[in-house]
Amino acid sequence: MRVKNIVAAGLVAAGTVGAVGVAWAFDHLYSPIAPPKAIDLGKVELGKKLYFDPRLSKSGFISCNSCHNLSMGGTDNIKTSIGDKWQQGPINSPTVLNSSLNLAQFWDGRAADLKEQAGGPIANPGEMAFTHTLALGVLESIPAYVREFKLVFKKDKIDIDQVTEAIAEFEKTLVTPNSRFDQWLLGKKTALTQDELAGYKLFNESGCVACHNGPNLGGNSFQKMGIVEPYKGNEGVAGRAGVTGKDADRFSYKVPTLRNVELTYPYFHDGAANTLAEAVDVMGRLQLGKKFTADENGKIVAFLKTLTGDQPTFTLPILPPSADNTPRPTPFN
Amino acid sequence: MRVKNIVAAGLVAAGTVGAVGVAWAFDHLYSPIAPPKAIDLGKVELGKKLYFDPRLSKSGFISCNSCHNLSMGGTDNIKTSIGDKWQQGPINSPTVLNSSLNLAQFWDGRAADLKEQAGGPIANPGEMAFTHTLALGVLESIPAYVREFKLVFKKDKIDIDQVTEAIAEFEKTLVTPNSRFDQWLLGKKTALTQDELAGYKLFNESGCVACHNGPNLGGNSFQKMGIVEPYKGNEGVAGRAGVTGKDADRFSYKVPTLRNVELTYPYFHDGAANTLAEAVDVMGRLQLGKKFTADENGKIVAFLKTLTGDQPTFTLPILPPSADNTPRPTPFN
Repeated sequence: MRVKNIVAAGLVAAGTVGAVGVAWAFDHLYSPIAPPKAIDLGKVELGKKLYFDPRLSKSGFISCNSCHNLSMGGTDNIKTSIGDKWQQGPINSPTVLNSSLNLAQFWDGRAADLKEQAGGPIANPGEMAFTHTLALGVLESIPAYVREFKLVFKKDKIDIDQVTEAIAEFEKTLVTPNSRFDQWLLGKKTALTQDELAGYKLFNESGCVACHNGPNLGGNSFQKMGIVEPYKGNEGVAGRAGVTGKDADRFSYKVPTLRNVELTYPYFHDGAANTLAEAVDVMGRLQLGKKFTADENGKIVAFLKTLTGDQPTFTLPILPPSADNTPRPTPFN
Repeated sequence: MRVKNIVAAGLVAAGTVGAVGVAWAFDHLYSPIAPPKAIDLGKVELGKKLYFDPRLSKSGFISCNSCHNLSMGGTDNIKTSIGDKWQQGPINSPTVLNSSLNLAQFWDGRAADLKEQAGGPIANPGEMAFTHTLALGVLESIPAYVREFKLVFKKDKIDIDQVTEAIAEFEKTLVTPNSRFDQWLLGKKTALTQDELAGYKLFNESGCVACHNGPNLGGNSFQKMGIVEPYKGNEGVAGRAGVTGKDADRFSYKVPTLRNVELTYPYFHDGAANTLAEAVDVMGRLQLGKKFTADENGKIVAFLKTLTGDQPTFTLPILPPSADNTPRPTPFN
């Protein structure tokens, strides 16, 4: 089983390298968040505007930033999101922060990458409730957008590919380097307190690391929610099986990143856990068959809070105004 | 009558000063937008966070910036706003830009100043649908807010006065200097084109200036909507009479600022005019008894577009995370 193998590998490594004085044998299973490379700045600036532009929704009220709010850890901090006409979403909004590091997008991984993801909510009747055609009609009517798309993509006409590519390029910049954990990984051994280090040790040796590893401490595999004990919030959502059609993938979800987890409450695909303490407790029992003591739980939570990195900072974009012929939003019909 | 008096004064002045070579005799009725003075930066930074914080709403989804969006001219660009549970607001969201220059706040002037205004939407059941007590409970539970309020206000407890004062202080910074019209007023005589100057002349000599004067080109008086002809969008809203109780104030509203009017569509208290051309036409006929030709209308609109100033630019604020005991938003009940 994958969990046990990874933990065993860690323990073996601990035994091996312990001999040469390295205390933290699991470190190689993680890596610090790095600044993005090969970014196209023109696309980033255009994508930033689109990310904040509610005119990509039917109502003119909902933008990408509504549910993936960059003031709030790239989430909405609501159990499940609010869509067009205040519809209740079926699932918790995952954070956009560091999402470029995930193996796929959405909880069920139905989008291969950020570009594919970006088109989804615009046309989802329960979210932005627009269509790609209508969104393009809005953008094509706004002279400053037409010029900027032309400058960036060198094409005569705006298409949905350009829209999603620009948004995805902006999202690639939404990484959060320099967390205290990353400072620690990079050699600043005073970056973590004794309690946080104890939490890190527990996190590794209890098996959390089995799924929450890599640069994003997650986001790189699909796993069943409820391995040892069934999870009660699985009803009504197919999980990964909705994509693969395989019964074995029922109740499987993309493992969420733990980066900035202090900011991305509430937790799980259904947003059922309000606090980190609750999430750690449920994960321990359902995934690892382990009931953490209050002291252990507190130490793991302390470690998790060291994963908050520098939040992306940028100037709030100013959107180009609609023209007289721009189709107006229709929030109430 | 006030309109005629001001226009007459302008014409007299034109006759008088024309003799000494000053072509634009109405200039003294305007003044450029100036940077704010005596600003408390601690309050501004705190107020900026509060302005963007949807946790001041019941749903956790609506912030001041939702309807007074600083990416979009300080408005939502929707006919009437969307409130809690997607309720349709009764009136168009006025821009927050340069609102510190208005004689009072809201269309009916029911709040004396920005501080008094800021408390309104939080507790309005049709808008943010929260209560001041609940909002304070949320803020008091967030350690970083508690520290910042203490640093700024030197008091032991957060109260609603501090909240609204900080938001108002931030809003005082939301001025838009350096429009082309202001550059022109300040002596750059190439700042406006011939058509724009022709529009300015029409704006003055037709009487628009009677209500739209001062630094904000409006915002400094209440006037009846529909002086010469009745306005059809007056039903169902009391206007200024709702505040004064005087029948003479029925259908009176605070004259909206024309600053950044290119960005603040749709127009009027009911958002019924989608374009500037439409708004100028209606104003001419209903307020001045004048039907502008297409050419005149186009020139006035060209002038109005010179009123777009430098938009406030600042870094998107990062909000402090909720604590385990912070009351969670309740968008769906």
